[in-house]
Amino acid sequence: MSHNSFGHLFRVTTWGESHGPALGCVVDGCPPGLPISADMIQHWLDKRRPGGSRFVTQRQEPDQVEILSGVFEDERTDGLVTTGTPISLMIRNVDQRSKDYGEIRDKYRPGHADYVYDMKYGVRDYRGGGRSSARETAARVAAGAVARLVLPGMTIRGTMVQMGPHKIDRSRWDWAAVDENPFFCPDPVAAKEWEDYLDGIRKAGSSVGAVLEVVAEGVPAGLGSPIYAKLDQEIASALMSINAVKGVEIGEGFGAAELTGEENADEMRLGPNGHPVFLSNKAGGILGGISTGEPIVARFAIKPTSSILTLRQSVSATGEEVDLRTKGRHDPCVGIRAVPVGEAMIACVIADQFLRHRGQTGRPGPVDYPLHRG
Amino acid sequence: MSHNSFGHLFRVTTWGESHGPALGCVVDGCPPGLPISADMIQHWLDKRRPGGSRFVTQRQEPDQVEILSGVFEDERTDGLVTTGTPISLMIRNVDQRSKDYGEIRDKYRPGHADYVYDMKYGVRDYRGGGRSSARETAARVAAGAVARLVLPGMTIRGTMVQMGPHKIDRSRWDWAAVDENPFFCPDPVAAKEWEDYLDGIRKAGSSVGAVLEVVAEGVPAGLGSPIYAKLDQEIASALMSINAVKGVEIGEGFGAAELTGEENADEMRLGPNGHPVFLSNKAGGILGGISTGEPIVARFAIKPTSSILTLRQSVSATGEEVDLRTKGRHDPCVGIRAVPVGEAMIACVIADQFLRHRGQTGRPGPVDYPLHRG
Amino acid sequence: MSHNSFGHLFRVTTWGESHGPALGCVVDGCPPGLPISADMIQHWLDKRRPGGSRFVTQRQEPDQVEILSGVFEDERTDGLVTTGTPISLMIRNVDQRSKDYGEIRDKYRPGHADYVYDMKYGVRDYRGGGRSSARETAARVAAGAVARLVLPGMTIRGTMVQMGPHKIDRSRWDWAAVDENPFFCPDPVAAKEWEDYLDGIRKAGSSVGAVLEVVAEGVPAGLGSPIYAKLDQEIASALMSINAVKGVEIGEGFGAAELTGEENADEMRLGPNGHPVFLSNKAGGILGGISTGEPIVARFAIKPTSSILTLRQSVSATGEEVDLRTKGRHDPCVGIRAVPVGEAMIACVIADQFLRHRGQTGRPGPVDYPLHRG
Amino acid sequence: MSHNSFGHLFRVTTWGESHGPALGCVVDGCPPGLPISADMIQHWLDKRRPGGSRFVTQRQEPDQVEILSGVFEDERTDGLVTTGTPISLMIRNVDQRSKDYGEIRDKYRPGHADYVYDMKYGVRDYRGGGRSSARETAARVAAGAVARLVLPGMTIRGTMVQMGPHKIDRSRWDWAAVDENPFFCPDPVAAKEWEDYLDGIRKAGSSVGAVLEVVAEGVPAGLGSPIYAKLDQEIASALMSINAVKGVEIGEGFGAAELTGEENADEMRLGPNGHPVFLSNKAGGILGGISTGEPIVARFAIKPTSSILTLRQSVSATGEEVDLRTKGRHDPCVGIRAVPVGEAMIACVIADQFLRHRGQTGRPGPVDYPLHRG
Repeated sequence: MSHNSFGHLFRVTTWGESHGPALGCVVDGCPPGLPISADMIQHWLDKRRPGGSRFVTQRQEPDQVEILSGVFEDERTDGLVTTGTPISLMIRNVDQRSKDYGEIRDKYRPGHADYVYDMKYGVRDYRGGGRSSARETAARVAAGAVARLVLPGMTIRGTMVQMGPHKIDRSRWDWAAVDENPFFCPDPVAAKEWEDYLDGIRKAGSSVGAVLEVVAEGVPAGLGSPIYAKLDQEIASALMSINAVKGVEIGEGFGAAELTGEENADEMRLGPNGHPVFLSNKAGGILGGISTGEPIVARFAIKPTSSILTLRQSVSATGEEVDLRTKGRHDPCVGIRAVPVGEAMIACVIADQFLRHRGQTGRPGPVDYPLHRG
Repeated sequence: MSHNSFGHLFRVTTWGESHGPALGCVVDGCPPGLPISADMIQHWLDKRRPGGSRFVTQRQEPDQVEILSGVFEDERTDGLVTTGTPISLMIRNVDQRSKDYGEIRDKYRPGHADYVYDMKYGVRDYRGGGRSSARETAARVAAGAVARLVLPGMTIRGTMVQMGPHKIDRSRWDWAAVDENPFFCPDPVAAKEWEDYLDGIRKAGSSVGAVLEVVAEGVPAGLGSPIYAKLDQEIASALMSINAVKGVEIGEGFGAAELTGEENADEMRLGPNGHPVFLSNKAGGILGGISTGEPIVARFAIKPTSSILTLRQSVSATGEEVDLRTKGRHDPCVGIRAVPVGEAMIACVIADQFLRHRGQTGRPGPVDYPLHRG
Repeated sequence: MSHNSFGHLFRVTTWGESHGPALGCVVDGCPPGLPISADMIQHWLDKRRPGGSRFVTQRQEPDQVEILSGVFEDERTDGLVTTGTPISLMIRNVDQRSKDYGEIRDKYRPGHADYVYDMKYGVRDYRGGGRSSARETAARVAAGAVARLVLPGMTIRGTMVQMGPHKIDRSRWDWAAVDENPFFCPDPVAAKEWEDYLDGIRKAGSSVGAVLEVVAEGVPAGLGSPIYAKLDQEIASALMSINAVKGVEIGEGFGAAELTGEENADEMRLGPNGHPVFLSNKAGGILGGISTGEPIVARFAIKPTSSILTLRQSVSATGEEVDLRTKGRHDPCVGIRAVPVGEAMIACVIADQFLRHRGQTGRPGPVDYPLHRG
Repeated sequence: MSHNSFGHLFRVTTWGESHGPALGCVVDGCPPGLPISADMIQHWLDKRRPGGSRFVTQRQEPDQVEILSGVFEDERTDGLVTTGTPISLMIRNVDQRSKDYGEIRDKYRPGHADYVYDMKYGVRDYRGGGRSSARETAARVAAGAVARLVLPGMTIRGTMVQMGPHKIDRSRWDWAAVDENPFFCPDPVAAKEWEDYLDGIRKAGSSVGAVLEVVAEGVPAGLGSPIYAKLDQEIASALMSINAVKGVEIGEGFGAAELTGEENADEMRLGPNGHPVFLSNKAGGILGGISTGEPIVARFAIKPTSSILTLRQSVSATGEEVDLRTKGRHDPCVGIRAVPVGEAMIACVIADQFLRHRGQTGRPGPVDYPLHRG
């Protein structure tokens, strides 16, 4: 069962609510002998952390991760290594203004999970969205940082390729630009324009959606499985599990529906070293559920933040019609903070598939782990 | 693990290759006491079956399903009922022209899984795609027919809403039209136009993609789970597991990225009977991973059939550059036959979530099963 | 979920009832490239097959296995090899005398699952025990035969070490004797005595229990997991899942409770080749849930067959007190046929743990599979 | 996969090492609306806690549990209720004398998991057994306390029925005695004798094994599943997963092997209220893997503590023969502290099976949860 877990050989279980004492995850299945530190994990958490710019929620959370288990001192390096036992990671909640939420205790905010939680559970922690808060994604980013340890030599990078109706110009794609604007946008010209656009949205108390793209390079051919553990299937599952995601596509995605067979199928030739190469990557690095060796390209659509300052029609838990505006600290484009989350989810999926590949096939896979002894 | 299984409380395992003696599935977790018959299952298989029109593969497979276990005679009705034990369903392969495939034994067909299977397994059944053949989806349709038994009162219907670049006009949507054209198209005008269009594609030995839409009505609020068993996540996973699918979206999907918070979040009011109702369904029936009670709307993109008559560049398993055309019997738009498959997958996901809901929450759910005794 | 499946990377799902058309299993996760044939599987089924001697049920089932999927012709050897896709195995039921069972349709046989099935499901296939029939174990034996392919170099052998109150004399243990008596008994003297004893039981229409022991040799150190996938835990689970098993123990087992720490813990020294060796094997080859490299020794207790000719007190589904004797063809000591089943279950557990070990740790494990290509 | 998790609908994942900063568990799947408090959990932890008598390790651990997630204030009662989201429980380690363990850093203690961890992982946290320390069982007891909330009306009680070679006299069984001696022994006379016996063992620096028995009363008929999720199978799995357990039996257990069919199968009659009753309980409350409604009786054997003061032969990680005595604080009979652990594991198994039963069959089960709203 997988209510709060994902993955199989690399398995992540998350826990925690927005306004409880802490949140965290247990990463089960990380191979032994991998160098690890809280700093390595913190690096990725800082990328996702709120409070970074005026375009994300002003909640100030240091999001300091604590490693509670699964590591041990490596006497040769004086650093920590994984031991193969479960790695428990915890982040204390600090800046919880619970009083902001008393007002919406019994009122169902449109676009939020309030109503369906009551339908399902009959009880809910209404403070800051409780379990359905985007804060849960901090635990995903922490788990993704561990997954990256399992995948040396692979590069997994997320970007924003569309904000509201505004798409990037792909001819201007520049990986270096991604870290130089507040949107993880690979098109520096678009990023500049988006600043003004999002300022307008923000000042109007409104919000806007986005499309994100994650590219994983260095993934060897052969990961995934033909039927119900397809690599693209697990990526779709992982991305759709992120709050506010409404669509996922691989490679050409929905655009493939418009192509003919001649246009869509990637042809092959022998490369300089005599190995097969693909002449294009319409498939987004996956055929028949299995990686081809080409970069894996996944996009996902994030809906606009549901919390806005405009008065909206709703109902209450006690059966009355109400008009409601969602105050508090919020994101005009929650898609921004979803970029590192998307990266993390894909890192976790690939780590899991990589470990499964070795178990399934007896083939070693690309990574030789630096085991501590013998 | 889930290499060839999906679902948890309602769990389906499929097996079989295109040119082996048979294919089938084991449905584990169907509740006891439900009336069942081979005819009920055959009804849905016939909908998917090849050989129905000139627009689908001319392979003639009767696809007769055999129920091997999990059922027993109900003395009160003289019909069969489920017993709660695993239901094994088998379909014998009949029309296997294996000789068609000898030529591509060592040549990797562009867009197919040939190359990646060799990378992963080092061995593959090349006849008709082996395990990655679309024939595997017959087992899914059979399983979906059982899932429907678990969900009385729900209506799950699939349609084609785009063929190649040609979209339907939604103002002409007519459910009655769906069964009156060879494309499951709800727009009778578009369906007419598509006939000519696809004839052209077919005669050219080419192929084209499609976008399908499945709508599930009558799904009660409360199914799904907040984090890693989100109803939309499991739908995305199930649809992306179908051969040739490159994208999945729920409700507004990728369109939601272009909306503002005001435009996107569905407002609520009290309905005539005093129960909460949504004033729109941009969410596609799912919020926070849990069903809202509104119709569930999922779309998925199918790439064009990779098997085409045009000569394409490729390589061989023995390390040579080759030029290759895929002969044999094929579908100009494999999306047509994917419509009943998409329906079946969504039926399975909802059945699983429905059974889990009862286990998770102690809430009865919408269905009272007609138990045999006591 | 695991209602009818066990294992993870090597995963077996069984289906079928005693008096349905067939029974079988799907083996998912067998690595590719392993030589396989129906004969290899039939060999083990024949060992379990009823009708072999006067001490087992006179039901005459040929138990012919059919391989329906997951294999392909290896052009180099003209034999079949596994492909890495699910292996579906089917055995048709042939000799079904359903009329024998009409009488007990509504009467709960003491010691059988009749009553609890009705409590759980409200419906049951009463013919021959339906799903709870020992015939289900034929599917386990077939799966175990596949598991053995994954474990070349390991020897997994089952024996009967106690029949009713009569134990073997371990000083007379002779592996060669096991196949030379109808009880798989390693003590030829005891086996001779048991013949008379069981003849008496059989003629009285009574039945008797047994204790079986399975020994797995050649299992490398390192298989298993420390906490909830302990090798001994999974063995206990697998053996306890066999019909009629009431107890499981590893190594010294319950006898360990009577020992002191000095007596129980196996000491170590360096062996002739400088590798660590254990000076005893009280642990039965498993410490902390992980294999030590010593032979794995597991015992399990089988209760006496519940079907006996003596009149017994019971109740009926319709709420009456009844007196009942179970006619039909039955085993005076069902433990005999459980020997190959116990072997099969342990083979499956070790195969699963072996594949998991490779995925978990990056360590290759003892087996290099003969992959077809590259 | 289940390396550090067990259960399905009620699923527990544990983490933590003996000498890390903390240990804990995540309980996923607890139904919503159940009153809960840290005190309720602490009650059971205190029962297991070391430092209670001279017969258990002198390590002084307060074992204070902290609830980190999954609960919310119930406004009607001012207490906490579960919300249906994962319950994260943490216990800080306090009294860690790591220096005690430096000496055995490279030496494999006989009977411990030291050697096999190195074989499996190539690295291990040697301090106090690391992950394989009995401290992990504190997390199990905490999870078991949550499981009990799911099972109101059931009574699950553990006892010690044998210490070393000394068995209780069952005719003196007195539940009231269990809490009045340091051994959870139901025979007050035996308990008195055991004190002297264990004092001798303790003073000699030796250790001794034990047999424990857990009885679960009030479990309704119908829990469990026929084949690979048998209730007795899952109990065997859960108990065998506890450190130092070498055998598990249900009801008559290994004794059933010595019985005839007439002696073993429990007969039935109608009880005073017209419902079926069993005239004996040789089956230990389980037939065909499913509960009968009779008390569930499970026994398990604990080996003697491997850490003893006697000099023992072993080898080192660096390939030398060594003689070794295990100093530090230890238990002369680790079975004592395993009693609450056995109770907890059985509570978890029954909670899981109970929730699954509702999902599987549509039958409500014995418990109506007090849902917060609607």
